[in-house]
Amino acid sequence: MIDVAEAEKIILSNTFTPNIIEIPLELSIDRVLQEDVFTDTDFPPFDRIMMDGIAINFDEYENGRREFKVAGIQAAGKPQQTLIDKTECLEAMTGAILPNGTDTIIQYELLEFNDEKTVARINDEDIERGRNIHNKGTDKKAGDLLIKKGVIVSAAELAVMASVGKTSVKVSQHPRVAVISTGDELVEIDQEPLPHQIRRSNIYAIQAELNKLGLKCSKHHLNDEKDELEKSILKILEDHEVLILSGGVSMGKFDFVPEVLDTCGVKKLFHKIKQKPGKPFWFGVRDQKNVAFAFPGNPVSTFMCFHRYFKPWLMKSMEIAEVKKYYAVLNDSIDFKAPLTYFLQVKTHFDQNANLCAQPIVGRGSGDHANLLEADGFLEIPGGSEAIKKGQVFRYFPFRN
Amino acid sequence: MIDVAEAEKIILSNTFTPNIIEIPLELSIDRVLQEDVFTDTDFPPFDRIMMDGIAINFDEYENGRREFKVAGIQAAGKPQQTLIDKTECLEAMTGAILPNGTDTIIQYELLEFNDEKTVARINDEDIERGRNIHNKGTDKKAGDLLIKKGVIVSAAELAVMASVGKTSVKVSQHPRVAVISTGDELVEIDQEPLPHQIRRSNIYAIQAELNKLGLKCSKHHLNDEKDELEKSILKILEDHEVLILSGGVSMGKFDFVPEVLDTCGVKKLFHKIKQKPGKPFWFGVRDQKNVAFAFPGNPVSTFMCFHRYFKPWLMKSMEIAEVKKYYAVLNDSIDFKAPLTYFLQVKTHFDQNANLCAQPIVGRGSGDHANLLEADGFLEIPGGSEAIKKGQVFRYFPFRN
Repeated sequence: MIDVAEAEKIILSNTFTPNIIEIPLELSIDRVLQEDVFTDTDFPPFDRIMMDGIAINFDEYENGRREFKVAGIQAAGKPQQTLIDKTECLEAMTGAILPNGTDTIIQYELLEFNDEKTVARINDEDIERGRNIHNKGTDKKAGDLLIKKGVIVSAAELAVMASVGKTSVKVSQHPRVAVISTGDELVEIDQEPLPHQIRRSNIYAIQAELNKLGLKCSKHHLNDEKDELEKSILKILEDHEVLILSGGVSMGKFDFVPEVLDTCGVKKLFHKIKQKPGKPFWFGVRDQKNVAFAFPGNPVSTFMCFHRYFKPWLMKSMEIAEVKKYYAVLNDSIDFKAPLTYFLQVKTHFDQNANLCAQPIVGRGSGDHANLLEADGFLEIPGGSEAIKKGQVFRYFPFRN
Repeated sequence: MIDVAEAEKIILSNTFTPNIIEIPLELSIDRVLQEDVFTDTDFPPFDRIMMDGIAINFDEYENGRREFKVAGIQAAGKPQQTLIDKTECLEAMTGAILPNGTDTIIQYELLEFNDEKTVARINDEDIERGRNIHNKGTDKKAGDLLIKKGVIVSAAELAVMASVGKTSVKVSQHPRVAVISTGDELVEIDQEPLPHQIRRSNIYAIQAELNKLGLKCSKHHLNDEKDELEKSILKILEDHEVLILSGGVSMGKFDFVPEVLDTCGVKKLFHKIKQKPGKPFWFGVRDQKNVAFAFPGNPVSTFMCFHRYFKPWLMKSMEIAEVKKYYAVLNDSIDFKAPLTYFLQVKTHFDQNANLCAQPIVGRGSGDHANLLEADGFLEIPGGSEAIKKGQVFRYFPFRN
């Protein structure tokens, strides 16, 4: 049996290499950028007016002039005008190009107009040359690198790409994922279970998590019957890069998943991790083309393994440059001494010192999803810890927003 | 001019009352639950076997028996069997119903079998009665409340609802949102801007943020022309509950948005907040049917106002029971003394003490989206602070995952 760190290392050494696809800009939110993005022009592209007011030639102000006849108006979106008579001014609007012959914008707050609004008077003695102008190219020069590939597109990146005219964007293509449950006790949601049956839920949980990550998946339920399993898995392997299975990996007489995956050419890289929950997790690959995450069928095990192993695998596969790590302080001592890494369900909040505090959720250990309703993530508590005390800090894996 | 707290109070007093709609379970991820969810049966619904092994009658073990002839097998998903001869055992699989006449499961790890696998020997003297059984109804009784309305559906809720047979779920209906940019200097993404023009980006940023929240929107660009604005806004008000505008709310000669909204029957509740950026933000309502968030056109202002005001408004409107508040520690002193609340862009990370630390991003103050590329959120720094020192804690508003 290997430990969590070894398991993670093996998984992250067997990532999927995504194709690069080009998609419309508007669909690129949360996708991983696969190209560097450059400016197509200076930022800003012209000397841009930053306040509503008047545009003047500063020499006149410096020479003592305070009253300026209004010669016209420079609106945003209109071609650049020229101030011909330097003793005059042009009204000038935020977002407009700075008129020729002017170099300074005085905002309305510092002005007073005559009744006819034909003459502006400056009520301020502290004006400096160049005020309220955002000069061409101050932020970026044409051709500058704006966004490096590997970034997850947020609204900011999307807006910046809009502003440089990128109508389509190169991003990592998602792998095709099949989610497969096994277990003959499972019936469909809309069925009334017999006394020895329960409804499926794992595939819905995993589908929901995948959807949140922007991935679609196909869903399958396979019976605990060796030939059927083999036939179905071979077929699924043909058009999916990733298989996420739940159930059938333990010591039961009908736990055929490891054996069948092997028969299908999926080579075992490990089986069983020193962890609780999720010990019987099985992981394998086929010809660098497929990976199979075969999680234990216990809903909490499947859920934790998905977050602890599948998500980091996906992030690395998608070639994300930087992934945030979370830490939280344990709010209460707990009793756990087994030589296994313990994934402790917690509910977190920020205290007034900006510390992320984690309150253990004392589940019934039943492995039902119902145990997860109060939790928002889990702490990873290394095995063999002497005692697990209030105030200790552990890595935290969030599973709610 | 009002302050941030007053503005927030006014906005949160003018929420939208959502319709309740019923949607398929599989689409309910991230939606707000509008019904309580109860168990339809005990949890677990039968005495469930938790480990693979053999099912025995504990009296026999207590009386000294260690070898049990295997009389059959109780598989998961198969009807309950009966152990007739108490000196024998049944092999028993995880997830199966406990066979009649047995009360204890001994896992394979503690067993040894003869070569023919017909007799199991227990190699453990510490077995207790009832081991490895998850008894019917231990977690929940039929009819118990599982999930309260007001919860955001995460994968855990979705899975629990699957397990109680909810194929469809009542959730808050999203408001219909129109995103409107104004400003004659703006051209479409696929156009080559003239020397005094720039491409639109605000509506794409807002659309992306709305999409991340699960909302769709319609996008509009309106020219700075009063009659056209009025006609278009009246039309948009007919089939949208929410208008998010950017631009046209400042002191410019073509800033018609407040006046036009008023003409359209949208009553101003405030105009201008003591904050930077985003001072000229205008907010109004029409007949308790529409709300209009008219943000300043500066991209950073629009972005900050969306996160600081629109998102909390939406959360409250959707009737979410509990919203997480974030706090972060400032990593560097900064120079800001104006009597305005300052939204400081920062990049955060967790240190090894589980403290969320915020590094100020020194922008060029230009208000371009490019300034947001390095940041992952902003701190809200109250106005009139003496000095803003490293180590101080402020509320943090994240804008990346």
